Amino acid sequence: MSSPEPRAPSPEARVKRIAILGSTGSIGRSALAVADAHADRLSVVGLAAGENAELLAEQIVRYKPKTVAMASGAALDRLRAIGAGDAALAGSGPDGLVAVATAPDVDLVLCASSGTDGLEAVLAAIEHGKTIALANKEILVMAGGLVTAAARRRGVAILPVDSEHNAIHQCLHGREASEIRRLILTASGGPFRGRRASELLDVSAEQALQHPTWRMGRKITIDSATLMNKGLEVIEAHWLFGVRADQIDVVIHPQSVVHSMVELTDGSTIAQLGVTDMRLPIQYAFSYPSRWNMSLPALDLVRAGRLEFDVPDTVAFPCLRLAYRALEADRSLPVVLNAANEVAVARFLEGRIGFSSIAEIIERTMNAHRPAEVASLGAVRAVDQWARDYSQEAARGVQLKV
Amino acid sequence: MSSPEPRAPSPEARVKRIAILGSTGSIGRSALAVADAHADRLSVVGLAAGENAELLAEQIVRYKPKTVAMASGAALDRLRAIGAGDAALAGSGPDGLVAVATAPDVDLVLCASSGTDGLEAVLAAIEHGKTIALANKEILVMAGGLVTAAARRRGVAILPVDSEHNAIHQCLHGREASEIRRLILTASGGPFRGRRASELLDVSAEQALQHPTWRMGRKITIDSATLMNKGLEVIEAHWLFGVRADQIDVVIHPQSVVHSMVELTDGSTIAQLGVTDMRLPIQYAFSYPSRWNMSLPALDLVRAGRLEFDVPDTVAFPCLRLAYRALEADRSLPVVLNAANEVAVARFLEGRIGFSSIAEIIERTMNAHRPAEVASLGAVRAVDQWARDYSQEAARGVQLKV
Repeated sequence: MSSPEPRAPSPEARVKRIAILGSTGSIGRSALAVADAHADRLSVVGLAAGENAELLAEQIVRYKPKTVAMASGAALDRLRAIGAGDAALAGSGPDGLVAVATAPDVDLVLCASSGTDGLEAVLAAIEHGKTIALANKEILVMAGGLVTAAARRRGVAILPVDSEHNAIHQCLHGREASEIRRLILTASGGPFRGRRASELLDVSAEQALQHPTWRMGRKITIDSATLMNKGLEVIEAHWLFGVRADQIDVVIHPQSVVHSMVELTDGSTIAQLGVTDMRLPIQYAFSYPSRWNMSLPALDLVRAGRLEFDVPDTVAFPCLRLAYRALEADRSLPVVLNAANEVAVARFLEGRIGFSSIAEIIERTMNAHRPAEVASLGAVRAVDQWARDYSQEAARGVQLKV
Repeated sequence: MSSPEPRAPSPEARVKRIAILGSTGSIGRSALAVADAHADRLSVVGLAAGENAELLAEQIVRYKPKTVAMASGAALDRLRAIGAGDAALAGSGPDGLVAVATAPDVDLVLCASSGTDGLEAVLAAIEHGKTIALANKEILVMAGGLVTAAARRRGVAILPVDSEHNAIHQCLHGREASEIRRLILTASGGPFRGRRASELLDVSAEQALQHPTWRMGRKITIDSATLMNKGLEVIEAHWLFGVRADQIDVVIHPQSVVHSMVELTDGSTIAQLGVTDMRLPIQYAFSYPSRWNMSLPALDLVRAGRLEFDVPDTVAFPCLRLAYRALEADRSLPVVLNAANEVAVARFLEGRIGFSSIAEIIERTMNAHRPAEVASLGAVRAVDQWARDYSQEAARGVQLKV
């Protein structure tokens, strides 16, 4: 008696196996909520966290990943002490992230680790043919050329999770690049929208952390207050969608209902709108090219009230202008912009420099740098290190008297 | 010596040969402006007009169509007297429209003739395998089942030119029907937005013809003032996109910047925005599946100011409610709605009935009708005739004292 031939499952029916880099952060926790809602379609096979061993231990109990990693050996020791169940401890630092991202049973890697920590892991995952869901804009700002070239060579999709780029990805859906006239990134304007430069000198970290429409991590919330977040998004959009700096506009849209837009060659504009909940873009990246149900309350435009649009004020918020300058100069200047920004924001959050000094430190570091090609990860890391050193020095020069 | 084999031109390079039904109307003239702007891509091979022989004669001199037609023999006589150059006079009435639409060298038929005059021509063009660009919503309201079934059977595309449906077509681009949760049609609200029923009793045709955002023909402008235009669009959307009445919502959006939206299964909303110029949707239908440049000023959201959204008032504007009722009853009731509306609007434009009587006449005619299947053009025309006769009688009953 012959048994029937097993049939290949349909692509839709197959469970997608995901690894999450940054699982205890804001995006990581939203991603796990999406996995909860679609347990029949998603399987969490890898988790990497920073320092929060307690939360990672809880996640291990709940999601039973095969491989886990943490940022430091000390964090890994704490996790070991709490207990990691049957999960294999893949290590710490960049190596741990690489191990989680490249494990053989991973289909898709969500990179939501902080800053540029996940860069090596993203490059390694691409080499292993994994689909990348990218929630971390610093990686493309720092190494957009390397990452997108590797993805093209390996035929790997990079799916943007940032709400703006996710919106543009949805707006472009199935359209030729030749149809794009320009991308329009929307910005809430942050907590200091409408203030002049002179009114921003003595704002505190606490004030800057009050984002009007989105609840996010601390670094990105400060970036939203300076508009550097939008500047990084401009650079990210350049790499994701292959458009020039002069084809990317930013418009202030305080209600954060329109997540971004694409103007096409005939002047028609396609926009994506939605509630401000990161589960939406995360689920879209997980489900792509399908689209799954979501039980979130739908957008109610009548309740949302009026939608407003305004031009950004690059005098009060010079970080946006600096990002355009970095993108137009190309080569190593975006690496410098990003590194100096990370240093300056950290100093601001520590209360050691004022809000206006963030842009000042970045600009001084950029002015001191001579742009060069960055054709390898080593070259990128070298420029990054130089910029961190220089901006730390610059930060000391503008330090507040406490 | 052998001559080289002729090569088939690329689809993009080939000139599209278009016939325009309703060439002297508002849409027809915009379509010819698009043909002017893309003379290398579009060739006007057929023109059909209503009664304006003078303008059609000018269009013949300029565009040199091979075949022309007019609504009546008298109009055709006037055209003959002025001179029709080398164009063949295909006849008058429905036969003339059919001849222009089915001429062998026509690739695409733009149906922008008034009311349901073009119904036979559209059905005949579909049978001849022509692509249909449909600017006339009455045809789908009256015979959506027949027209869409024929188009499916012949593999012919029906491209919507109405700005709302064109917007939805652009929003859906490449997406599966299973991704649609609901369609959201935007409505400017017309000149009487915000008024109560009691404030609409004595408005004049002149007032009703003052549309706040779009410049259009007289019939459609009155339909915009009563919101029947939106009701007809709801029915049209049902046929074009295969969605149920309860999946189609209408939202009042006075600025007419967002032309319509699609809410997808995950709650994400895709919108199409643009300036209010019919050349945009007409050109999109002509260029589809490509998209051509257009030198119109692009949408400037900052200058557009705020965008507002509100629920429609179906007490003051009962025509929208009547259209949903007709669609939900399906079968012959939309034919009755449309015919009674054409009669009532004509009487209102003649100053013989008041604004509020338009909905009253339609509702009385609908109430008097017993819905039946309409499986043939003959059945449709019979119901249409019955509804016209009944509503004319009803209109006499509510006639104004003059």
